[in-house]
Amino acid sequence: MNWIKVFAPASIGNIGPGFDVLGLAIDTLGDTIQAKKIDESIVISEITGFDGLPKEADKNTVSIAASEVLKKLGINEGIEFKIEKGIPPGSGLGGSASSAAAGAFAANYLYGEKFSKKELIGPATTAEAFVSGGYFADNTAPSLLGGATLTREKHPLDIVSLGNIDELLVVIVCPDFKLLTKKAREVLPKNVPMKSFISNMANACLIASAFSKNDYNLFSRCINDEIIEPARASLIPGFLNVKKSALDAGADGCSISGAGPSLFAITNDKQKAEQIGKAMKESFAKSNLESNYYVCKSHKTGTSLVKE
Amino acid sequence: MNWIKVFAPASIGNIGPGFDVLGLAIDTLGDTIQAKKIDESIVISEITGFDGLPKEADKNTVSIAASEVLKKLGINEGIEFKIEKGIPPGSGLGGSASSAAAGAFAANYLYGEKFSKKELIGPATTAEAFVSGGYFADNTAPSLLGGATLTREKHPLDIVSLGNIDELLVVIVCPDFKLLTKKAREVLPKNVPMKSFISNMANACLIASAFSKNDYNLFSRCINDEIIEPARASLIPGFLNVKKSALDAGADGCSISGAGPSLFAITNDKQKAEQIGKAMKESFAKSNLESNYYVCKSHKTGTSLVKE
Repeated sequence: MNWIKVFAPASIGNIGPGFDVLGLAIDTLGDTIQAKKIDESIVISEITGFDGLPKEADKNTVSIAASEVLKKLGINEGIEFKIEKGIPPGSGLGGSASSAAAGAFAANYLYGEKFSKKELIGPATTAEAFVSGGYFADNTAPSLLGGATLTREKHPLDIVSLGNIDELLVVIVCPDFKLLTKKAREVLPKNVPMKSFISNMANACLIASAFSKNDYNLFSRCINDEIIEPARASLIPGFLNVKKSALDAGADGCSISGAGPSLFAITNDKQKAEQIGKAMKESFAKSNLESNYYVCKSHKTGTSLVKE
Repeated sequence: MNWIKVFAPASIGNIGPGFDVLGLAIDTLGDTIQAKKIDESIVISEITGFDGLPKEADKNTVSIAASEVLKKLGINEGIEFKIEKGIPPGSGLGGSASSAAAGAFAANYLYGEKFSKKELIGPATTAEAFVSGGYFADNTAPSLLGGATLTREKHPLDIVSLGNIDELLVVIVCPDFKLLTKKAREVLPKNVPMKSFISNMANACLIASAFSKNDYNLFSRCINDEIIEPARASLIPGFLNVKKSALDAGADGCSISGAGPSLFAITNDKQKAEQIGKAMKESFAKSNLESNYYVCKSHKTGTSLVKE
């Protein structure tokens, strides 16, 4: 009965301007799984927390990722999983990626830790792609590695850990509203005006530099996305008002987390963080949307064993 | 007779993928000017080094930048300049920007050092725009500040110093061929495919991170421009062959410096640097172009007083 417990943090894809390139792991929200070796096959015996996720091993990213890892290891034995889902599904916080990260990590841990966490990004991303329909590492990479990460190439995967910003507080607001990633992708432009390309690139570069230097002041003025946010804004009821309420409450920046519908806002002031969360929640209420807010920090270590 | 002497380094605009955003100061090549206070008006009494630059104070970026600084200071006195041009004009190495940087620095120094170097980027960029036809800080900023810089916004100017890479060697090859910035701008696409935007942004982000962390290995794999280089390649005779010869000789990356026609290649190996320079020069010769090559390092301090 050697159960292990693994935690994989939620993450924010894009971090504003850095579409499909930047991602950031956050604490407070995440998936926790228990896993143990069994003789054969991969099974999910329990899912708690949020509803609506499949228990079938070939449909859940925990088990798909674990299966990918066992395949790479050439192992024919199995794993039993119990999943405690801590990230609302379809919220834009990388929930399926965190589950995939946890599943890949657990399989690797149970069967000899042959792979580094970086090497687990591939299997986790394959699993996440099965559910999301696209092969993107901007959630699996930060969830596994922690901090901010950059996807340089997808084929083959080339991921760089950028670092952390200690002062950073991220206010996450999840409205009670489903937005399919597929729909959020359909509204994206196929071409980008040169001016917008330059603007997004400049701001994304500064985010990369800010995490590399642990510099909140630099980061605080870079959440500015001229390309993706305007295209998706209308998919989230009340988006512009909620964003305005965050900035009015003192946030240094606010944008959509991944494909949405969750928003994130940033500050380095704890008291302000609470005010920002409340203001955003109230603003969503005006669009008849219930929501929850969470004040998070950057998750430094990424997916790891929970020792009890 | 209190002459001062000022050196302003050459610079590489774009650094590959970072169009209009990134810039890097390099040593070895640069403009040196002498300046002294005079009672009234700004005059250029001597230009040595490269030919073809105007002595008229309202046409040379040294004097235009100095005039901008005196205007900001509210000073009606004058300056006499002697210019020793060390950057080939029209080479894509930010020659007019270096002259502007030197002129702005000298004027500020002679009249009380009221402005920081960062505050001189505005006047220098205004002067450079007079000659180049566009307001871009990707040469004036690195020439003044040194190292790699990022232009976040142009109106108002928002410039960030990224840092240096100590190991970096930059091989610059200047063919004897004029390419007007105007022409190099005309061939640029107005829109950018989403895929290319993502690729250039990812590589530019890593360059920003690499300079922030002083990490040559990271930088070495990011000189990859899917947008600007392909559009400009045909304007430089033999470009693809010269680039190939650089990579074959061991360069870790090669692209166009600014609007060209100079190319730059990178390595961290001194011996290889010479081989790369020779190979590129030979390759240009096959397109019937004479060229010179220079092995440079990043210029850490930017425009500064030369003490004798």
